[in-house]
Amino acid sequence: MKNYIEKNKDRFLSELFEILRIPSISSSEANKADMQRCAEKLAEQLLAAGADSAAVYQTAGHPVVFGQKMVSPELPTVLVYGHYDVQPVDPIELWKSQPFEPEIRDGAIYARGANDDKGQLFMHVKAFEYLVNEGKLNHNIKFILEGEEEIGSPSLGAWAKEHKDMLACDVILVSDTTMISDKVPSINCGMRGLAYVEVEVTGPNKDLHSGHYGGAVYNPINALCKMIDSLIDDKGHITVKGFYDKVVELSAEEREMFARAPFDMDEYKKSLDIDEVKGEEGYSTLERTAIRPCLDVNGIWGGFIGEGAKTVLPSVAHAKISMRLVPNQDCNEIARLFEEHFLSIAPKGVKVRVIPHHGGNGFLIPVSSNAYKAAAKAMGEVYGIEPVPSRGGGSIPILADLQQILGVNPLLMGFGLERDTIHSPNESYLLDQFYKGMESIALFYKYYTK
Amino acid sequence: MKNYIEKNKDRFLSELFEILRIPSISSSEANKADMQRCAEKLAEQLLAAGADSAAVYQTAGHPVVFGQKMVSPELPTVLVYGHYDVQPVDPIELWKSQPFEPEIRDGAIYARGANDDKGQLFMHVKAFEYLVNEGKLNHNIKFILEGEEEIGSPSLGAWAKEHKDMLACDVILVSDTTMISDKVPSINCGMRGLAYVEVEVTGPNKDLHSGHYGGAVYNPINALCKMIDSLIDDKGHITVKGFYDKVVELSAEEREMFARAPFDMDEYKKSLDIDEVKGEEGYSTLERTAIRPCLDVNGIWGGFIGEGAKTVLPSVAHAKISMRLVPNQDCNEIARLFEEHFLSIAPKGVKVRVIPHHGGNGFLIPVSSNAYKAAAKAMGEVYGIEPVPSRGGGSIPILADLQQILGVNPLLMGFGLERDTIHSPNESYLLDQFYKGMESIALFYKYYTK
Repeated sequence: MKNYIEKNKDRFLSELFEILRIPSISSSEANKADMQRCAEKLAEQLLAAGADSAAVYQTAGHPVVFGQKMVSPELPTVLVYGHYDVQPVDPIELWKSQPFEPEIRDGAIYARGANDDKGQLFMHVKAFEYLVNEGKLNHNIKFILEGEEEIGSPSLGAWAKEHKDMLACDVILVSDTTMISDKVPSINCGMRGLAYVEVEVTGPNKDLHSGHYGGAVYNPINALCKMIDSLIDDKGHITVKGFYDKVVELSAEEREMFARAPFDMDEYKKSLDIDEVKGEEGYSTLERTAIRPCLDVNGIWGGFIGEGAKTVLPSVAHAKISMRLVPNQDCNEIARLFEEHFLSIAPKGVKVRVIPHHGGNGFLIPVSSNAYKAAAKAMGEVYGIEPVPSRGGGSIPILADLQQILGVNPLLMGFGLERDTIHSPNESYLLDQFYKGMESIALFYKYYTK
Repeated sequence: MKNYIEKNKDRFLSELFEILRIPSISSSEANKADMQRCAEKLAEQLLAAGADSAAVYQTAGHPVVFGQKMVSPELPTVLVYGHYDVQPVDPIELWKSQPFEPEIRDGAIYARGANDDKGQLFMHVKAFEYLVNEGKLNHNIKFILEGEEEIGSPSLGAWAKEHKDMLACDVILVSDTTMISDKVPSINCGMRGLAYVEVEVTGPNKDLHSGHYGGAVYNPINALCKMIDSLIDDKGHITVKGFYDKVVELSAEEREMFARAPFDMDEYKKSLDIDEVKGEEGYSTLERTAIRPCLDVNGIWGGFIGEGAKTVLPSVAHAKISMRLVPNQDCNEIARLFEEHFLSIAPKGVKVRVIPHHGGNGFLIPVSSNAYKAAAKAMGEVYGIEPVPSRGGGSIPILADLQQILGVNPLLMGFGLERDTIHSPNESYLLDQFYKGMESIALFYKYYTK
C-alpha cells in the first residue's frame, strides 16, 4: 500500500482534517448538531471509499454510522469498529493550537481526535479504499462507527442487538489503543473494564459563613476527603467490600510472559516528572495498569473555587470516581458494591448520594486466534519486528458488549503511542504511525482467513 | 429617631438600593471600576448626610472612603468602620432574585451586601444624618469605609498607619456582625482571627488517561484527600504541629458565663438540616464556633468537573483551606506552621505548594468599657431586653490591626441575624433590624462618653 499512500497523501490528510474540524464532543449537549454532521461526513467518506452502502442511523443518543461492501458470502467478514466522538478539550488554555483546527507540527497531526479515534478509524477507511481501488478486496468489510464511546456507549449495545444480523462477522477489528512504542509494536490481547460513579456529599442545607459555623458543623469537603482517603488502604488495596472477589490471579508463568514487555522505570518517572510510582503492593507498574483493578478520583469539586479567598463552609461537595476492572469483574456489580460501601462509610452529619455513570466489562482475546496471527504477521512485516502481545489498561466497554452480542472476538490493532496524550491537551498522532497503520491494516486482510 | 425614620423611610431605601446595585465584588478583577464607583457614591452620601468633608482615597488596592464631622476637640470622637465590598455571588443559580437588583420580600431586603456590610454601614450614615439634622450631635464622628474586607483588607492597614492622626478616636464602632436573635440582642466582645491558604498538589506533569496510568501513578486528588483528612484527628483536634501552643484555655467561670447564651441544639440542627453536629471533643457548639480555633476546606477542585464522565488521572488538585484563630494565635505564625506541616506530610509521588492568602488576628473587647455600656443601654432600650455579651466566630482581621494602630478598642454592634445567610445566595437583611439598628446607634451617641 506504500505507493498508494505516497500518491494520495495530501488528499488523505485533507479528508481526515474535514472530520477533525467537527467538534464532536459526545458529553456536551451543545455539540449535538456536530455529532450528526460528523456522522454524515463519515458515511459520505465510506461511500467515496467504495462501500456499497453507508448510512447514518439514529439512536436514543448520538447516531451510528454503518457501511459495508459485501463481496461474497463465502469470504470472511471483518467488522471494523471505531468511534467518531471525542473527549472534551479542557483545560483549553494548555493547547498550543486550537483543538478543532488540525495542524501538522514535527511530523505529527495535532487535534482533539487526531488519534482517539478519528485518526485511527480513518486508517481503516483508507486501507479499505486501497483494497477496493486496486482490486485486492477478498473479504466482506463492514464498518460500525459510533458517537458515544467516550461516554460509555449507552446506545450502541441496544442498536447492535437490534441489527445483530446486519453486523454478523468473523472478527471485530479495532484501532483505538496504543502500542508499547514505535520500536516495540504490540497487539492488545485484553482490556480492563470500567465502573464510573459520581458521589455527592451534603452537609448543611446551604453554604455557611465559615466563621460563624466553622468548627461546629461537618464540612462536606472534609467529609468527602475522609471517605475518599479510606477507599484505598496503605498497601494500595481498594477497601470496597467484595471488590476483589472475582479477580482472577495470574499464574507465575503468565506474569513472566507479561514482564517481557520492555519497561524503563527511570524513563517512565522522568516522562511524568514524578519521583515515585504508587500502586498495589506486590505488583509491577505494568501489572498495576493492565492486569490489576484500580480506583481513581477523576474529578473533585466543592465550595469556592474562583479567584481569591471566600470563607465559606459549603453545603455540598462532589467527586467523580472510576474503577478500572479486570476480566471477570462485572461492572454493574462493582458499581453496586461501591455504592453500598460508600453509603456505609458515610459519617454522621452528612448525607451521601452515589450516582452511577456508564460502565463496561473487561475482556481477553486468545493469542491463538487466526485474527491475532494475521495481525502479528502484518505488523511484523511493516515494522520489521514481531509484535508483542500486551494487555491494555484502558476500557472500551462496548467491545465487551459486542463480543457478547455477536459472539466474536475483537482484535485490537492500535497504532497510538503514549506521546499522543489522548484525552489531554495537545492530542496528536504521528504521521509515521498513521501511514504504517494503514499498511498494517491492508496486510492484515492479505493474511486473514476464517 | 423613630419619627425621623418613619418620615424618611422611602428615601433611605432608595439611597441604600443605589449602593446595593453596584456589584462591588472585591475579589474579582472584572469589578475594579465598580469599586471606585461605589466608593464615590458613599462619599457623596456622607456629604449629603452632613459630613464636613468626605473623600475617596486611592490605595494599592481598592479605594478607602473617609469622611468626618468635627464638632469640638473636647468631645469624644467615634470612628465608624464599615466595608462596601461584597462576597462573590456564586452559585448564582440559587438566587431567587438577582444579587445586584435589591428587592423587598417578606419584610426583608434581598441583595448581595444587603446585610454584609452595605446595609449595616448605611444605618450609621442615617443615624449620623439624623443627629446632624436634629441638632443632637455631641460627638465628633469619622467614617472609614473600606473596599477590601472580604479579601482580608490588604491595603487598609498601611493606609491607616499613614493617616493615623486623621483617624484618631476614642472608640471604633462597627456593625458587621450578627446578634444571637431578634429576641436576644447581643454585643460581640471578641472575634476569631483567620489564616487562609491555598494548596496545590501536583502528580504527573500532565493529565493522563486513567486507563493507561490508573493504579500505577499517584493521583493528586487522592493524595490531596489523604493530606486534608489527616489535618483533623478523630477527636476534632487540628494536627498542625504547634497549632494550639498559644491558645489560652478559658476558666470554668468564663465558660459558664458564655454558656448563658441561649442555644437550642434541635433548632440548630433542624435549621441546617443535619443529623449531627461535629467538632472538637470537650467543647459545646457555641464554644466551638467562638472560643476555639478550627480548620475548614473552603473549596476544592481538580480533574474533570464538567457534565458527564471523563476518565482522567489529573495532573493537579487544589484546595483553599482556612483556619479560624482565637486571641493570642498569630495569623502569620499559624500560616507558616501550616505550610511547614503540609509540606512535611506530602507523600512521595506528588509535589506540594502552599500559597498564603490574607489573614488576621482575633481580639477581645472589655465588657467594662464605656463604649460597651453605652451600646448595651441603647440596645436595651430599643429591644426592651438587656443585650448578652457574646463572642463572634467570624473574623474582621482589619479590626485587630486598627486596634493596634490606633490604640483603641473596636465595639461590635451587629444587627444581622443568622437567617440573613450572608456570603451565601439570597443574602438578606430584615427591615425591622435595619430600623432598630439605626435607633440603637442614635441612642448609643446619647449615652456614650469618653
